[in-house]
Amino acid sequence: MRTIHFEVLKRDPNSQARLGQLRTPHGVVSTPVFMPVGTGGAVKAMLPEEVAATGAHIILGNTFHLMLRPGHNLVRDLGGLHRFMRWDRSILTDSGGFQVWSLKESRKITEEGVEFRSPYDGSLHQLTPERSMEVQEALGSDIAMAFDECPGTDEDRAYVERSLARTTRWLDRTIAARRQPERTSLFGIVQGGRFDDLRREHAAILAARDLDGYAIGGVAVGEEKAEMHRVIELTAPVLPADRPRYLMGVGLPEDLVVAVAAGVDMFDCVIPTRNARNGRLFTSKGIFVVKHATHRDDDRPIDDACGCPTCAKFSRAYVRHLFMINEILAHRLTTMHNLWFFQRFMERIRDALVAGELRALMGEAKQLSHAGAGADSDSDSGAS
Amino acid sequence: MRTIHFEVLKRDPNSQARLGQLRTPHGVVSTPVFMPVGTGGAVKAMLPEEVAATGAHIILGNTFHLMLRPGHNLVRDLGGLHRFMRWDRSILTDSGGFQVWSLKESRKITEEGVEFRSPYDGSLHQLTPERSMEVQEALGSDIAMAFDECPGTDEDRAYVERSLARTTRWLDRTIAARRQPERTSLFGIVQGGRFDDLRREHAAILAARDLDGYAIGGVAVGEEKAEMHRVIELTAPVLPADRPRYLMGVGLPEDLVVAVAAGVDMFDCVIPTRNARNGRLFTSKGIFVVKHATHRDDDRPIDDACGCPTCAKFSRAYVRHLFMINEILAHRLTTMHNLWFFQRFMERIRDALVAGELRALMGEAKQLSHAGAGADSDSDSGAS
Repeated sequence: MRTIHFEVLKRDPNSQARLGQLRTPHGVVSTPVFMPVGTGGAVKAMLPEEVAATGAHIILGNTFHLMLRPGHNLVRDLGGLHRFMRWDRSILTDSGGFQVWSLKESRKITEEGVEFRSPYDGSLHQLTPERSMEVQEALGSDIAMAFDECPGTDEDRAYVERSLARTTRWLDRTIAARRQPERTSLFGIVQGGRFDDLRREHAAILAARDLDGYAIGGVAVGEEKAEMHRVIELTAPVLPADRPRYLMGVGLPEDLVVAVAAGVDMFDCVIPTRNARNGRLFTSKGIFVVKHATHRDDDRPIDDACGCPTCAKFSRAYVRHLFMINEILAHRLTTMHNLWFFQRFMERIRDALVAGELRALMGEAKQLSHAGAGADSDSDSGAS
Repeated sequence: MRTIHFEVLKRDPNSQARLGQLRTPHGVVSTPVFMPVGTGGAVKAMLPEEVAATGAHIILGNTFHLMLRPGHNLVRDLGGLHRFMRWDRSILTDSGGFQVWSLKESRKITEEGVEFRSPYDGSLHQLTPERSMEVQEALGSDIAMAFDECPGTDEDRAYVERSLARTTRWLDRTIAARRQPERTSLFGIVQGGRFDDLRREHAAILAARDLDGYAIGGVAVGEEKAEMHRVIELTAPVLPADRPRYLMGVGLPEDLVVAVAAGVDMFDCVIPTRNARNGRLFTSKGIFVVKHATHRDDDRPIDDACGCPTCAKFSRAYVRHLFMINEILAHRLTTMHNLWFFQRFMERIRDALVAGELRALMGEAKQLSHAGAGADSDSDSGAS
């Protein structure tokens, strides 16, 4: 009996894509799904009811951030993360592996785990497979991620091989450390850098562990977009077909469609929320830069094809003004808009899968991912 | 025919207090009323519908801020401030006089008006009686304030006399500059510093102009609380009894009750919103400092006697956590709470006036204005 149940409802005849349904102890999630990022126990600027209103049924919480502030034991004592933040739908937590790896200058990787200094107060901490699992179970996550190492894109083959072997040993320690498998399920993470055979080999090693789901890690970490797509298209199809597949930290609409076509079911990314706070909005005509002076007196909504609460009510001129005066309300309005856009886009992907027309979305998705009407000439980074 | 209509519904037999009703082109306002401050076209962190949900029927907008950003002509061209910010209830705008006076080092007062440098870009601007009226009419304010000088508490009698004479000349220029009296009403502002006879004299001068309402200015600018109360109690009763009386920039619950008892009908202050963003919350047990470490694991609401959306859902521990991680949502939750508190407190004042029991609120109001359960030993400043 698994904690989560995943069912493939329909397979796309023209690609590896699947339409599915994921059931967790906190509800039903239609896949392919995009999970907004709620780093420190909140999707930045948003009330949980507003996140739910965008159509999100699962969000991501960060082990690294929550173990440092407010501390996972505190969250556990207050009834778990769902209750602490008043979000009664599903939660997936990352393992903290990516964040400690990103600390670069202030962390040390050993066989035991990773020692690091808190970016908040410089205090010394350790994350190990056991500790990451303990934190995620204390948070009461529906889906925990196994603690892994994410090798840099410039690491050589020998390093990646050693890293993978260690990540596998860490996975086995993670599995042994589980205390509440009936409540918190566990996904493994495929690494392997840019080496195709290592990716495939690692996928097979993970599959042998019979986990609740499988993630693709180590992408969108600075590599070219074509290389990222290649790794996704190589890795997703070799992951067990009856389990959810999760692409971590990706991405733009064009990346989502490519990954769905490769057989990915789940996504998370800071792009909609972070870009919103930077005034970069997703619209039916491409990315819209709200601070641009041309919107100064524009009474139209951000996107007249959008049904979000922001576009239903407020003008480009007003949202731009709020940005220019550094008003918090600007972040609320734009975050709502971008999350709404991403949830609608995933709905369109699911509808396209029902209709067998996923390929038709691909050209449009590319257009949606780049500067459109009212945007400046900036290009948008491919990932988080 | 006046733009606004004010009716005194009941007079308190034991004080100068009045229960009233103010009708503007944008609705009915029960008085005594507290107006949340929406400086730059938004009550910081809040949606207009949330401000309305607290029970607010009128808010304050700032001439100084809006003329600089985004510019009053832009707001006028987009249909006025109500439409720009999507607030369909009443708006009162200040004259900008207090803000330019506060610039101290970067302004020069002449007979013509005040020259000042923008705090945003250093550009040179001028505010005059005519210009202030033009800006407020461009914004489409329901109630405009006359441009005045607010003399410092330490100015000598000779200076205050000269200043008052100029403020009166400015008022007459303001009256002459009105272009849409059918849409925007005009209140005058009594100054006079700490000089009782000058205050009374200025009140009489204003009354002779037959304005739509009368404000008490130049209080809560650094003087002792007892002195502030004295000036309020001296000035309010000599203002015309059939017009709304507005005490500018005040204050704490204890100040509101004192002023209501002196016959004041309208208030604005940044205290509820600014204190919220600093984590100082008004509760039925006094001021509550949410960042205090003792709330770290406290699962109770901020105030279990409060019916606001924040207290209905979130714990002290969660709100404190959001503050500690500098999360925008903290400001939303606390602003909602404090605005809710102030609107409920004004309701209690109105209910007490109906019941003839205003005096009974005075002791409690004092307690509500100072550190209570869970607060630290900080004292709270008396005004904005």
